[in-house]
Amino acid sequence: MKIKILTLFPKMFDEFMGESIIKRAIDKGVCEIEVVDFRLWSQDKHHHVDDTPCSGGAGMVLRPDILIPAIKDNSSSNTYKILMTPQGRLYKQDIAQDLSKQDEIMLICGHYEGFDERIREYVDDEISIGDYVLTGGELASMVVSDSIIRLLNDAIKKESHEDDSFQNGLLEYPQYTRPIEYDGKKVPDVLLCGNHKDIRRWRLKESLRKTMKRRPDLLLNREFSKEELELIDEIKEEEDGKK
Amino acid sequence: MKIKILTLFPKMFDEFMGESIIKRAIDKGVCEIEVVDFRLWSQDKHHHVDDTPCSGGAGMVLRPDILIPAIKDNSSSNTYKILMTPQGRLYKQDIAQDLSKQDEIMLICGHYEGFDERIREYVDDEISIGDYVLTGGELASMVVSDSIIRLLNDAIKKESHEDDSFQNGLLEYPQYTRPIEYDGKKVPDVLLCGNHKDIRRWRLKESLRKTMKRRPDLLLNREFSKEELELIDEIKEEEDGKK
Repeated sequence: MKIKILTLFPKMFDEFMGESIIKRAIDKGVCEIEVVDFRLWSQDKHHHVDDTPCSGGAGMVLRPDILIPAIKDNSSSNTYKILMTPQGRLYKQDIAQDLSKQDEIMLICGHYEGFDERIREYVDDEISIGDYVLTGGELASMVVSDSIIRLLNDAIKKESHEDDSFQNGLLEYPQYTRPIEYDGKKVPDVLLCGNHKDIRRWRLKESLRKTMKRRPDLLLNREFSKEELELIDEIKEEEDGKK
Repeated sequence: MKIKILTLFPKMFDEFMGESIIKRAIDKGVCEIEVVDFRLWSQDKHHHVDDTPCSGGAGMVLRPDILIPAIKDNSSSNTYKILMTPQGRLYKQDIAQDLSKQDEIMLICGHYEGFDERIREYVDDEISIGDYVLTGGELASMVVSDSIIRLLNDAIKKESHEDDSFQNGLLEYPQYTRPIEYDGKKVPDVLLCGNHKDIRRWRLKESLRKTMKRRPDLLLNREFSKEELELIDEIKEEEDGKK
């Protein structure tokens, strides 16, 4: 898979691409990342890429006559072109999974006040990594790249990440490691008993409990299994007992 | 404001801290960033920081006897300590605004399968930047830092970003800049007319239209002004006319 990144700050990606997991994917040929400085498409001698907004307002807007040719020159009919913008659809794990199946994606990073509206007609998708405002699209495009490359690596390792948060629509269950006791706090007994059936059931229950408490929104459209419904009843009884 | 970052990959932050906006905030003394490698709190000769999960499962879990002392040694009663984790509350612009008022925050970056559950008792907050899984907490902590530092910079410049996406609960209106015509596509006439009342109304209307189309979820608990309700009616009529 190839990821092309269009940015005004190519240096920001140096450390990211050298990071262990990403570097391993690049070295193994699982993925290729190309960072393109779209300032090179500016023709004037100061290499301006932006201009003031039509009819006023703060900040600067990225010009269509620079970014659109840069997009065209760096893509083929095979390239899935994505604008990184807070106005895009909200990025989620299922979008990461879909994107990881593409041959080539282009992530276009805005800066300043954003893109001239006409640029939106030349892309296939617009993605927001969350309901907050960032200085530019660079961190957002690293987030998207990281989440995709992680899935590609897993595919290679044939390792499943079924237990990840969101992978089954729930937050992950609590994890414990050594030491068994620290600062007076012990690993739950069930995890030390070696009964795999009990452990699996405890993990599913705690996953449900955490999701109910912290992110009930994730459960709104979920279809629950019979076992999950039983566990939810148990949790409700326990939580009522605490009151 | 001081931001402390606890991580196993301190080098990943080099470029981020050199980036223009962040660097300016540091140079101006608006904000100080300290990156701490918590591997230094490991006592064994191989500097291990993680171990296998109790009772099985893939991946490695960060050990409480390393991270908890690292958290304690790097914080005071003044430090608002935040775990970066997909199990946290969903990060949004209003959380960025709250955090920007803190004197000192600590962002703790996990890696691998995550944190031993006991670590959660030693922090004040847990934050997720979105419903997707990343290799580690480093990019997430950069996202949080960037969104906060951006607000601190604005405070200094006394410039308001009222028009940003999410700032007023809506997506931002379409932005345009020169050239007025490009590839057969023109800037809307209203933006060239110079009538500020018309421009303001057009922008609010297009902001509403975009939010209704792309992110109706953002409108669910909104209290609309009389003008907004009128514009929504106009939009509905126009969209019905298109069908």
